[in-house]
Parts: sequence; C-alpha cells; structure tokens
Amino acid sequence: MSESMKGLKRTHRCAELDSANVGKIVTVMGWVQKSRNKGGIIFVDLRDRSGLLQIIFEEADAGSENFAKAEKLRAEFVVAVVGRVEQRAGGINKNLKTGEIEIRATELRILSESETPPFPIEENSKTKEDLRLKYRYLDLRRPDLQRNIIMRSKAAAVIRNFLSEEGFLEIETPILGKSTPEGARDYLVPSRVHPGNFYGLPQSPQLFKQLLMCSGYDRYFQIAKCFRDEDLRADRQPEFTQVDMELSFVDVDDVIEVNERLLARLFKEIIDLDVQLPIPRMTWQEAMDRFGSDKPDTRFGMELQDVSDVVKDCEFVVFKGALEDGGSVRGINAKGQGSMPRKKIDALVKFARDYGAKGLAYIAIQEDGTVKSSFAKFMKDEEMRALIKAMGGENGDLLLFAADKNKVVYDVLGALRLELAEKMELIDKNKFNFLWVTEFPLLEWSDEEGRYTAMHHPFTMPMEEDLQYLDSDPGRVRAKAYDIVLNGTEIGGGSVRIFQNHVQEKMFEVLGFEKEDAYERFGFLLNAFKYGVPPHAGLAYGFDRLIMIMAGMDSIRDVIAFPKVKDASCLMTDAPNVVDAVQLKELGIDIAEEEQM
Amino acid sequence: MSESMKGLKRTHRCAELDSANVGKIVTVMGWVQKSRNKGGIIFVDLRDRSGLLQIIFEEADAGSENFAKAEKLRAEFVVAVVGRVEQRAGGINKNLKTGEIEIRATELRILSESETPPFPIEENSKTKEDLRLKYRYLDLRRPDLQRNIIMRSKAAAVIRNFLSEEGFLEIETPILGKSTPEGARDYLVPSRVHPGNFYGLPQSPQLFKQLLMCSGYDRYFQIAKCFRDEDLRADRQPEFTQVDMELSFVDVDDVIEVNERLLARLFKEIIDLDVQLPIPRMTWQEAMDRFGSDKPDTRFGMELQDVSDVVKDCEFVVFKGALEDGGSVRGINAKGQGSMPRKKIDALVKFARDYGAKGLAYIAIQEDGTVKSSFAKFMKDEEMRALIKAMGGENGDLLLFAADKNKVVYDVLGALRLELAEKMELIDKNKFNFLWVTEFPLLEWSDEEGRYTAMHHPFTMPMEEDLQYLDSDPGRVRAKAYDIVLNGTEIGGGSVRIFQNHVQEKMFEVLGFEKEDAYERFGFLLNAFKYGVPPHAGLAYGFDRLIMIMAGMDSIRDVIAFPKVKDASCLMTDAPNVVDAVQLKELGIDIAEEEQM
Repeated sequence: MSESMKGLKRTHRCAELDSANVGKIVTVMGWVQKSRNKGGIIFVDLRDRSGLLQIIFEEADAGSENFAKAEKLRAEFVVAVVGRVEQRAGGINKNLKTGEIEIRATELRILSESETPPFPIEENSKTKEDLRLKYRYLDLRRPDLQRNIIMRSKAAAVIRNFLSEEGFLEIETPILGKSTPEGARDYLVPSRVHPGNFYGLPQSPQLFKQLLMCSGYDRYFQIAKCFRDEDLRADRQPEFTQVDMELSFVDVDDVIEVNERLLARLFKEIIDLDVQLPIPRMTWQEAMDRFGSDKPDTRFGMELQDVSDVVKDCEFVVFKGALEDGGSVRGINAKGQGSMPRKKIDALVKFARDYGAKGLAYIAIQEDGTVKSSFAKFMKDEEMRALIKAMGGENGDLLLFAADKNKVVYDVLGALRLELAEKMELIDKNKFNFLWVTEFPLLEWSDEEGRYTAMHHPFTMPMEEDLQYLDSDPGRVRAKAYDIVLNGTEIGGGSVRIFQNHVQEKMFEVLGFEKEDAYERFGFLLNAFKYGVPPHAGLAYGFDRLIMIMAGMDSIRDVIAFPKVKDASCLMTDAPNVVDAVQLKELGIDIAEEEQM
Repeated sequence: MSESMKGLKRTHRCAELDSANVGKIVTVMGWVQKSRNKGGIIFVDLRDRSGLLQIIFEEADAGSENFAKAEKLRAEFVVAVVGRVEQRAGGINKNLKTGEIEIRATELRILSESETPPFPIEENSKTKEDLRLKYRYLDLRRPDLQRNIIMRSKAAAVIRNFLSEEGFLEIETPILGKSTPEGARDYLVPSRVHPGNFYGLPQSPQLFKQLLMCSGYDRYFQIAKCFRDEDLRADRQPEFTQVDMELSFVDVDDVIEVNERLLARLFKEIIDLDVQLPIPRMTWQEAMDRFGSDKPDTRFGMELQDVSDVVKDCEFVVFKGALEDGGSVRGINAKGQGSMPRKKIDALVKFARDYGAKGLAYIAIQEDGTVKSSFAKFMKDEEMRALIKAMGGENGDLLLFAADKNKVVYDVLGALRLELAEKMELIDKNKFNFLWVTEFPLLEWSDEEGRYTAMHHPFTMPMEEDLQYLDSDPGRVRAKAYDIVLNGTEIGGGSVRIFQNHVQEKMFEVLGFEKEDAYERFGFLLNAFKYGVPPHAGLAYGFDRLIMIMAGMDSIRDVIAFPKVKDASCLMTDAPNVVDAVQLKELGIDIAEEEQM
C-alpha cells in the first residue's frame, strides 16, 4: 500500500509541537518508531528529524477505516496523520521534548510501507558497523547519527557566516587538478581527451589559495574536499573536508587572532562552550620537552623531565650511551603507581618498544619508601636519590625513563604519558584544552629519502632570524608554522608562506629538487611570484575531526554521511567497481596484465 | 627588493576610506596600478580588491629615502604605505569611490617587486583569452573578474543563508562514488587498493540526496561539485557547481514556492532586482507550441502559430506531406521585415536547414500590400489570404513557415525566432523574465538507442493521471518535472521523485533495463525503497550559469576562478599531465599501446 499525500500539507515537524499547540488541528508526517495496541487504543511513536511525537488512534475519532489502517502499522512505515493536539492523558514523558502532548488522530495515510529493517533504528546501536554501513540509509535514521550530521551542517554554517563577516570570500578551486608527487599519494583521473595524461585530485587547495592571494583576493576561504590515496587509519578517509583559509598582508599573530575568535564563536554556538581567549601558545620545542608531543594533551600533567644532567656521570650504559650519542635521558612520574605489579610494568616496557625504545628504565617507589628499579644496581645510592629528587618522586610513585636520541625519547614518553593517563583516568572528558603550538622546525631529515623534507610543506616561511642557517644547518631552521591543538588532537595547522621567489627557490634547493623539476611541478606558482606577491599566511582545519571531537565521537565515520571503510570502499554502493571495457578504451588505459583475472 | 611588513598593520582596504577619514593616519597595502611623477610629486594609484586609492609622495613628507623608493615604483609592485588622509588637492575624481581623497605618504615599503606583466591589469581586457588563462593569477586581478568572483561568493552565501533559514541542512555527499553508466560519461578514478576497479566522479548527487530523504533528513541542500566527461561547449566545464536540493513530504507546488522566494532573495540581494512573484508557469506543451522551445525567452513575442488547419486542403506538397506524416505546419511573423532582401531570406533558409528543416517557406508582404512568396504558385489566392490572416500578417511583415514532424518544426522555428529577435533587436537586455516550464514528457524516444530514454532522469515521477499509459503509450506520459528558465536559459530543473519501488522498477522496465542490471547499478536505492520512503522532490541549479547571467557575462569561464578550456585542460597548471610510471604501476593500470609514443 502506498497512498498519496494529495490534499494534505504538513503543518509541523513532530517535535515542533508542544502544549502551546493544544487544541490545534495539525498534520504531521514521519516514520513509525513503534506502535502498540493497548486496550483498543493504538499508540504510535512518530519520528522525524526533529524528534518523537505520540499519536493515539481510537476508532471513535479516527473512524473505522483509519483505525484499521493504524492496526497494520509497523516500524519504519511512513505515514501522514491529521489530528488534534491534546494534553497527554497517560502522564508526562519527561524524556521527550513533546512529552506533555499527544495527537488524537482523525486521519491516517500510509505513504510507504516498510519491510522489517535489518537492525533496529535506535540510539547507541549495538549493530556491527559493517552492517550499518551497508544499510547506511537506515543507519542515518538513528537519532545520534542525525544529531552529528545536523551538528556538522550547523557548524559549517557558523564558520561560513563568521568568515564572511570577517571579509573572507569563499572561492571554489578545481577538483580536477595537476598531480604533484610531493607529500601523500594522489588520486589520479585519466584524461579521455589527452590519452596517457592524468588529472590529480587535490590533497589540499594549497597552491590555488596562494595564487588567489597573488591575485589580490585578500581573504579566501573554502570548505573544501581533499583527497589522499593513503592506507586508512581509524581517523582517515580517502576524501575528507578541510576548512581552508588564506589571508594577505598578515603575520602569525593576525592568523591566530581571527582563528581564536572563530573557534570561540563555533564552540559557543554549537556546544555552548566558552573558549577562554587568548588560547595559550607553546613553541614546538617546549611542547616536545614538556609533553613529548607536538600536539600535547594539556588536560593533565605528568610532564617529561630532562634528567640528562643528573645522570650524566653515572655508570649505567643505557643512559651513558644515549648521552654520548647526543641523545638525552628523560622521565615521567606516574604519581601513585609505585605499587604497579611487575607484569603491568613489563607491558609498559613492551609499549615503549613499540614506539621505538630499546627499553624502559623504571624506579618504583613503594609506599614504605623502598625502591624497586630495573637499573639501581648500576647506580650509586646518591645518584638514585638525586634522580628521584629531580623527578619529584615521592613514596608510591612510579618513575619511568627513556634514554635514546631525542626523537625516540619524545615519542616514547609522549605516548607513554597518554597511555598512563588513560589508565589512571587522569583525563577530564569535560575539559576542552586548546593550545597553539608554534615555531615548528622547517625541515625534518628523512632517512628513507636521504634528504630533508618539509615538515609542513615546501611553501612555509622560515623564521627571519633562522634564515642564516638554511645552508649551514637546515635542521635548525624554525618555521613560521603553527598548529591548533585540542585535547591532544591537531585540529588545524598552517603557516606564513614564502612570498619571495628567491627564498622559494632556495627552499626547493634545500629539499633537493632540481630547479627544472621544481618548475615542472610548481612553475605556475614560481612564475606568479614574479609579478608582485603580498605577504600571506593561512590555516586549514580538518573539519571531519573537528566535528568528531565536538560531537564526542571516536570515529570520523560517525560525522560523515557516507563514509568509506579501511580499504577505501563504500559498503553501501560497492564503489569502487569494475567498469565497462568501452569506458577504459575511451580513456586509453588498460588494466595491467598481472591484475587481470 | 622585498621589505618586511614587520611593525606595520594594515588599517583599511583602499576603498574603505573616504572624506570622513580626513586627517587620520592610515596604513594601506596593495598593488601599484600606475605611478607617475608630475613636477616632483609622485602620484600612485594603489589597488586592492576594494578598489583604487590615490597616494601622493612628496619628499618633504615622505623623506628622501621613501621618496627614492617611490620613484622606483612600477605597475604591480606590492607596497605598504603609511600616510595621512587628505582632501584631494587636484579636484574630485567622480569615477572613483575614493575620488574625494588622497593619502599623503610618510612611509613606504616595497613588499614585492614585479616584472612587467604580459598584459595590462585593467577592465574589459582586449588580451586574448588563452594568454589570460595561462596567467590566470594576473587575469584574476582585473576588477571586472574580481567583481564576478566576489559576486559568486556572495551569491553562495545568500543561498546558504536562505536555505538554512528554511530548514535545509547542507550535507556533503561523496566525490569518490560509483560509476553508473546512464547519462553522460563519468570521470573515473582507478583504485589502488582494488586494482581493476574504479570510482566514478558524480554527475550530480542525485542518488545520495534521495537516500538522505530515505534517511529522514527532510530538507537537504548542497553547493556541490559535479563532473561530466563531455566534449565542452562554451558554457560547459568538466567540473561544474550545482546548487542541489531535495525536500521530503512535498509536491510540485512546495518546491516551486520555496524556490521562488529563494530566487527573489538572491536577485534582490545580489543585483537589486525585484522578481515578481509568483513566477509565471507554462506547460512544456504550451512552451513548445508558442515558442518552439522548452526554455522560451519570453522577453519578446513573435510566437509560433499553428496553421495546419488553415493549409490542410492546399496543394503545396511540402505542407501536405508534413501533415500526412502526422506533422504540422507552423509559422512566425517577423513584423516589419517584409522588405528583407532575398539574400538575407536565403540565409534564414540555410539557418533553418542547420536546425533540421528541409526548407523554409516564406511570405514577404511588401509595404504596398503585394506579396513575394516561395510557394504562392502552389496556393489558391483565398488560401494565401487565409494564411496571411491566420498569421496576423500586415503590410511590411515577413511570414516564415516550417512544415515537418513537430519536433523539427519546433526546433527550427524556436531557433529562428531567437535569431530574428537578436537581429531585429527585440530583446530588452534589462528585463529578467523568469518562467517555470512544467509537465515535461517523462520519456523521449532515442532513435540511436532504439528505446525510450528518461528526459529528466530515471527517478522522475510520472503524473498520476498518465500512469495508465506507461505500458500502452509511454511517449504520452507526462512527468512531475519542472525547469526554471530565465531569459531563455534553463537555470535549474527538478522533479518529484518516484518513491514506490514498484513504480521505479516499472520505470526501469520501460527504459529497457534488465532487472538485474538495474539492481547492479542502483540496487542500493531500490533496496532503500523497501524500508519506508517519504514522498520527495528536488531541484538543482547550474550555479556557474546562474552567476554568469547575474554578472552579465557571456561565458561561465568569467565566473569560475580557475576554469578549463575546450579540451578540458588548464592552461595555467598544464593539467592533465603525464605522471610517473610508478604511480600507474601502483594503480595496476597501463597506458594502452596505441596511445604510447
């Protein structure tokens, strides 16, 4: 059965009604959440995106025909109901926005029937995600997912309105772009008109937004689709959304200032959170030294301590060796964990090894002041005492040390700190700690490629005072780059850009690009730089991740309407799929032999 | 030379200043439009996106160092200037927003120099488009192009705000989708994880937006990138932007109503035009009969007249034959063109042939009432008189007739009508005539494919009263489809959708799809229809074309920041381009032998 809605017009969404409407005749439409016959009265919970509304059918009001139809209603049927708003007879339901009222139905149309869905449409579904993704159109009916998608839509609107007020223009940049093999892997699109040639889908609108600054657009933004053909992790998707912006005639502080106000507006309007401005700032070096991370979670302490000086004369070869190799010895103090069983400590050692440590030294201070330690035998008593003191160690504390190259020490202790905080339940989930991390290194050495690579991207401006080291000591050069971190997650980042051609060419040289090669890839940008470029800077947020955090979700799939899974496929549409041979022929491409079946 | 802007902060954009600011010390930054030394005073026109501002440098105020720098300024240098706002000494320039003032400079920094650009940065550029597109970053500096891009940005904002107010949610749908070979050619993206498989870039979010209705989102919109791998015409691009929307629990009138208010708001806010509501409506049949077009330009008359009845008994074989074949004879009256020279009439005959006519019959009524005609000799005098009378022919008029199958007659006279109107200058360019065209045929016969194809798309709802003809006479079935036409251009279109599975399956059957095939392509939609679907309908605007019309441009390339040219390449970035062999190897594809060099 599928009746027409002809002659009916919806007057309200379900949860737009309340006791102020009592007495009114209304027409509502939606999905049957549940239906039950209780003593000759049929109770239906009707659902639409606004919420639930109780409908009651009694034969005396609805007439026998409508009542008979109502008896057939099952979950997910789509219906239109005409009726009168009444105070709820059966007592108020405080869990429901519409809990004070109900609709006494006088007319019912079944617009669409439903088979029994493969899983119930309800909050906090326990159904396996794969099944939910296959039936994403049903999964998306669940109120929690609807709240996320609606939040996402509202957040985009708040961002757009704020940026418009601030003089930013939203300008669309191409999706069919040029493949530039620096950074992650591009998705490619074969050209039919130019066989053997390919478009690249953009990993970000970086070059285009810089060109727009060259063109005088002054303030640009875009909520832009970006693409990376990488192996997926839990919080990655082959296509993702960036809130991307660029400003002319600005320096670091200007970008930070406008973005702080943006964040404050966004979090206030979407989750009613007051963001304290200004947001604290920390240099990259300080973040690494104190938290072992360039995106520190500052909701709790347990900071790293550099004890290199304290142990520099000891005989423990692990410490000694690390220091001799130019590394360091650092520790964290897990307060009150001194009595952790050996097995759990061993698990921490294994955890540390997974992050690249050769081992993990520890001092477990018992409640009675005695000490268990993996390396006490190599240390003099006074050295141990000095070490404990330097770590602020008290009875009952567990001190954990890593000794290695700085990078390894940071990685290990940074990860260990988060792991312990989770276990020790140190993290206040209601806190929203924002932090700017600034003065990133411009370059990082890649053992794999045997050259420096850009930490941010090749267009990032070095700090003026470090320009002198670009040739002699490139690793020392800091960049005018900044990340915005929320509760230990990087939600955005950006930089001041190089706007002088000679600096940009120098940068490519340091990165080991042949000049020819750089022009082949980025020639249009380098050429643009010949015709008057304003100083400019920008920032981009990972929009999916930002909404994930605001919505309190653990996966970005919960804030994307139609996400893909780990192998970059869509379980609902079965994309990617095999296409007709004629399509490939038109594109002038073949499936490589070894891939054919 | 490239000075830092350190210590300076821009206080105003150039054209934000006016005589209210006289006496203030300001800092402005921008591009040198022109610079000239007149008797020891240097006059500089400074440009940013807001407009032009005159700066004057005198050595007494600026100091010798700044003055020396100012002497070196050339077009497109980027500078920062500190100075005092003064009433303009040299008289008011009424062409300029800032024409009453000038800045007396006290400090100058040259932030970036410029080589001489390959073409001047000026309005109404006479430079060849190819050169401008190669240097698009310079082309985009031109004020007329900037106005277009800014208008586009504002229009998007107006649309978004209106739709948000109306309860629409903007929801992003995937770019990496499934290739569904119905309609135009898809762009394909090879999958690395699933070699031999491909994503398709969406031609529109059609299926996803219908799924969102199934999911209860009620009102969806998106300003969405869409892709079609077609050979490009002047007003087409491989990627283009749609304002896409879909509504649940609505019928034709609801969609039209909200879109009329949207158009009224948009045109009022962007070009200060009052759109008279309601917008007139016309059925497809009436549009064809009166204007020979499904997107009639109603800014002028010259409507088609069906004279089949008048000539049905004549002996002129062209007329007779057409009528016997089930066609018609129709004419238009080009008022006052009766004295058109024979050569020009012949050109019209040729024009008609290009549109598929076998010929074009004419009656040229001279000012003295005598008649020149290509077919008078086949007609009786009274037949001619009756024909002229039926056409409202008066002395000095030119009557043109086509006789053929209806489709050909419509095409020919529809095109001829526009051609003549252009030549006769009948079109008031200041008029904005909106028109809804409704009740389109559901299907059209494709000689090429030997089957009916969907005129709109396969998800369009037939009109209830015509459902009965779906089997017996499919060509007769009208659809709940509607286009919105502005000045003879279709700016948008949509339809009520099929929401009953059995109707959708029937539709696929009429289109000649095997059931299996339909499920292979659209199975997720057909499956979704099993679980409770609301009646729904939608509409999409071609955003590029809409902005083109509002901006008064002739090409959508003038309203797209980085457009592609006819062969779908980007002259600035050289996309598409050849990629590394390793990239193709990872994707498991080869360039077909015959394409390799």
